Amino acid sequence: MSSNSFLRLKEDIREKELVPGFTARLIHTDEMTIGHVQAQRGSVLPEHQHPHQQVTNVISGKLSMTVAGKTKICEAGDAVVIPGNTPHSAEALTDCYLIDVFHPVREDYK
Amino acid sequence: MSSNSFLRLKEDIREKELVPGFTARLIHTDEMTIGHVQAQRGSVLPEHQHPHQQVTNVISGKLSMTVAGKTKICEAGDAVVIPGNTPHSAEALTDCYLIDVFHPVREDYK
Repeated sequence: MSSNSFLRLKEDIREKELVPGFTARLIHTDEMTIGHVQAQRGSVLPEHQHPHQQVTNVISGKLSMTVAGKTKICEAGDAVVIPGNTPHSAEALTDCYLIDVFHPVREDYK
Repeated sequence: MSSNSFLRLKEDIREKELVPGFTARLIHTDEMTIGHVQAQRGSVLPEHQHPHQQVTNVISGKLSMTVAGKTKICEAGDAVVIPGNTPHSAEALTDCYLIDVFHPVREDYK
């Protein structure tokens, strides 16, 4: 990542499939990863966990999220704070646009 | 911030004025601050800098951003990576919705 970056995501960052139906354009700084995620209606991100802190910001669509066994339906204007090492999963009830932010960097997403 | 948080931003987080015309609902984790920012057309965020890394994600609207003397017009789907201690400023050319993420936490925004 160059030091000062103006990014046009669709042109500058290749889309990566996270799991079937969940794709992301990922920005990595020294200390954070920001994922612009598109989820297709009906797609499921199975339960998983990672040491990184995560905040999922719902830009559009409707997403069922489960964090540590608690499930809520999330919509535009909602955010979900997921501490490190906390099991979580998601199901896209409609097509969704999400911005996931992580600290530290998701090296596994590079 | 409680450990597992499902947040409805407009209900759960009070809006804070950053500068006239720029208001934000701010989420603070242990290591990051996420700002859901509304900027009013014509408003200016004067040049400033801080040690925190920042990524500005444009959700809607048109924003002129200047980072280290370089200016670009940013729109939905654009992101700007601002390293720590780098002068930057912004002018909202239309009403804008931005998501700014920072590491470490913006203690000055608490």
